Amino acid sequence: MDMSETVSRLAQRKAKRRQEILQAAAQLFSQRGYDATTADAIAEVVHLTKSALYTYVGSKEEIAVLLLEQVVEQLLHNAREIESEPVSPVDKLYRLIVRHVEVIGHHPASSLLFLHSEHILSAAQYPRLYALRDQYEALIRQWIAEGKAAGIFDVRDVRIAGWLMLGSLNWVIRWFSPQGTLSTESIGHEYARILLRGLSSEKKEQQQEEA
Amino acid sequence: MDMSETVSRLAQRKAKRRQEILQAAAQLFSQRGYDATTADAIAEVVHLTKSALYTYVGSKEEIAVLLLEQVVEQLLHNAREIESEPVSPVDKLYRLIVRHVEVIGHHPASSLLFLHSEHILSAAQYPRLYALRDQYEALIRQWIAEGKAAGIFDVRDVRIAGWLMLGSLNWVIRWFSPQGTLSTESIGHEYARILLRGLSSEKKEQQQEEA
Repeated sequence: MDMSETVSRLAQRKAKRRQEILQAAAQLFSQRGYDATTADAIAEVVHLTKSALYTYVGSKEEIAVLLLEQVVEQLLHNAREIESEPVSPVDKLYRLIVRHVEVIGHHPASSLLFLHSEHILSAAQYPRLYALRDQYEALIRQWIAEGKAAGIFDVRDVRIAGWLMLGSLNWVIRWFSPQGTLSTESIGHEYARILLRGLSSEKKEQQQEEA
Repeated sequence: MDMSETVSRLAQRKAKRRQEILQAAAQLFSQRGYDATTADAIAEVVHLTKSALYTYVGSKEEIAVLLLEQVVEQLLHNAREIESEPVSPVDKLYRLIVRHVEVIGHHPASSLLFLHSEHILSAAQYPRLYALRDQYEALIRQWIAEGKAAGIFDVRDVRIAGWLMLGSLNWVIRWFSPQGTLSTESIGHEYARILLRGLSSEKKEQQQEEA
């Protein structure tokens, strides 16, 4: 085993450990709340001393940012995949809405952080997190604008329509329960149906019917 | 001046002082965040010692609950007023949406609390706050259900539609700026337009056109 192999194995082990810490922290954050969770408590769950914990992650705040980045990266990855599909803005947004709810449903603890700690994590301190979020928002606005330009959507202000959509989606974190009777899939499709009918130009539909 | 007059004046003065404390606290919460605001800081702004502050309010948490109650009471007051109007479910919800955004715009500091501290204030500890919120949500669901029963709305699950609506509305707190170019009025009307078109049954509209 040469030197570079050793380094790579060490890096892998470190990355794995880091991921374990992130998951443990996410659990604690969602059970006790972000503010009530101490670095000591996180260290205890993963059987590390606090100083050993800090060789993997910088601080409790950094853990929160890493967790949030993973969620937003997943959302953005989906959005870029959808962007490359040769479908209409309506279909792009439909798919994005369904997958947004799916991502939230699969990362409930990290998603909750977004509601409860975003005010602590300022854009100036964590430019990468906010840049990812802005790219996601920008794609949504772009598709709404494309639909508006094509006469498919009837919206006065693309920003307002984008905020309405994202706000309703992010609020799902607040009431969704993985133990409940509603699946993320059924929520996603119902949201997509309501939100896209809400954006759609009625005139356009009439024109299509007349044509 | 008899005894009862003196008592009533004292009560009035106390209520006024209490309101001053609430307003000062709301300002601090929105500037520094709920968690970073101490009872000492609130006492300082209203020129009281901390122990004098506690003769007016029980704790920082109680201040937050009182502020939130005032906002939810205002929302519920509006909803009940609208409920008494002899108009269709569509018009009731339209008015409610416009007034919801208006209330948020007039109480930005208290409304922000709703996003940042609701997880600290549990339903078990503050049943009155949550009862008010539930009554508000119940009226919205009732109107959606009425519209659904009348065939005006096409929704599969009244709860999902209600959450979508309330989520998008509450998220306005997150991005609205009183210094920005958008007025609460224009936001409210655009939200109402998009959300109600989203709920509306297309079939019904077609039937009406055909009739």
